[in-house]
Amino acid sequence: MSDFDTETRLEAQPDGGYSGIVHPSWNIGDNPNGGYLLTLAVAALQRAMPGHADPLSVTVHFLRPGLAGKPFRVDVQVLRQGRTLSTGRATLVQDGKTCLEVLAALGDLDRPAEPVMSLQPPPMPPPEQCVSRSGGEQGLPLPLLDRLDIRLHPGQARAGAAGEAMVSGWIRFHDGRPPDTLASLLFADAFPPAVFGLLGMVGWVPTIELTVHVRRRPSPGWMLGRFTANDLIDGRLIEDGALWDSAGNLVVQCRQLSLVRQGEPKE
Amino acid sequence: MSDFDTETRLEAQPDGGYSGIVHPSWNIGDNPNGGYLLTLAVAALQRAMPGHADPLSVTVHFLRPGLAGKPFRVDVQVLRQGRTLSTGRATLVQDGKTCLEVLAALGDLDRPAEPVMSLQPPPMPPPEQCVSRSGGEQGLPLPLLDRLDIRLHPGQARAGAAGEAMVSGWIRFHDGRPPDTLASLLFADAFPPAVFGLLGMVGWVPTIELTVHVRRRPSPGWMLGRFTANDLIDGRLIEDGALWDSAGNLVVQCRQLSLVRQGEPKE
Repeated sequence: MSDFDTETRLEAQPDGGYSGIVHPSWNIGDNPNGGYLLTLAVAALQRAMPGHADPLSVTVHFLRPGLAGKPFRVDVQVLRQGRTLSTGRATLVQDGKTCLEVLAALGDLDRPAEPVMSLQPPPMPPPEQCVSRSGGEQGLPLPLLDRLDIRLHPGQARAGAAGEAMVSGWIRFHDGRPPDTLASLLFADAFPPAVFGLLGMVGWVPTIELTVHVRRRPSPGWMLGRFTANDLIDGRLIEDGALWDSAGNLVVQCRQLSLVRQGEPKE
Repeated sequence: MSDFDTETRLEAQPDGGYSGIVHPSWNIGDNPNGGYLLTLAVAALQRAMPGHADPLSVTVHFLRPGLAGKPFRVDVQVLRQGRTLSTGRATLVQDGKTCLEVLAALGDLDRPAEPVMSLQPPPMPPPEQCVSRSGGEQGLPLPLLDRLDIRLHPGQARAGAAGEAMVSGWIRFHDGRPPDTLASLLFADAFPPAVFGLLGMVGWVPTIELTVHVRRRPSPGWMLGRFTANDLIDGRLIEDGALWDSAGNLVVQCRQLSLVRQGEPKE
């Protein structure tokens, strides 16, 4: 069993909720990565809405940082179960407090389909010519990088180097687990903030809200991510992202609203 | 009082919910426009989270069509009240069934701010050289157009004419009510589907989920909208939009996940 599967394991509770442990191995500094917490909540939705395995549209609001190493529970409310998709909400709670609120539609992406229109992946040097993501510049330990192998475009690996709000590169699990639609939610929130490419290291970029649209199941192998920002006002930033699989198929489009805060280097 | 203010009026209920009537004057065919229903739910959040008047990030899942002319109620749950923003969910119910589920963060956009990065509005002929939106081609009555004055770019006003999945134009209230951040949610869902520009009239494009980010309060006058799509697979479409105010300031970015269905012309 892969680290990701082990560390997103849920136990069904008699009252209909799900419980587990927030593993510290997915931390950014002292805080669990938001994308990892999101997969815990969506895994609970997958369990509660059987028959619809793939998250098609997922919105999460991050209300409080998660607590690494501590138990969590997820309460699920199924809002509508349909033939082609089901909609539900999930609330991830730790220590009696809500950390994440998720609203999502799940469906089935098992039919192979050719897109009528799609986004093309950007040119990218092969992974071995890219630069492994490190926490060095921010001075943050990034346990997440023992789980995720992230290789950044060599022109965008250093904060401020890109000269624009863009970051791109490759991503996969270190242990060889193939990507799936659940993991693609994690991958959508694992790159450094695109705004670092323009502004350099800017302290703390907490995410208020993230919406991920999953477009198809990914092929095995590396995924390619590109994240850009072009809308920053009064410390409120919109970042757009996309992920492609190893066959060049678009798997994810995502967008997040974040705050850009000078000061203490957290993410 | 403007039509919009009158027809989004809420009555606070003793149990903490809000009630009102879904006015048929905002219909697309027989169904209330989704953006109008969304403003009812967000108006309830504004009431329940005083001090934070502006929707910053709003996600709505459309679970069932609304019922025009019928009463509704909105149940609100405040998830977190903070100093700079508050987060809550709202559920719009008619006839005992959930029509909309909304998850939103509200804050304050009363500080004038210069953007660090922003999107520029596209070139657009003045409103008097644009073409009023009509329901004619779809054969649908559009009562909504008695409330909203929508003028489409002359090259994009006829389905299929644009040759690409794009629609753009001007929008305002017919009765002269100035736009605000609540109305900008309505404006984000009032243009014809961008995909008509590429595919021609394609029947029914029901929205599964819409996320709107409001970036600032709009100046009075016309707003300019541009909506594009570049990601359609297996009948699932992503449409991106943006709205600018009369001073050329970006007010809204939005994205929706819709289904593209041949057949019965609804929207």
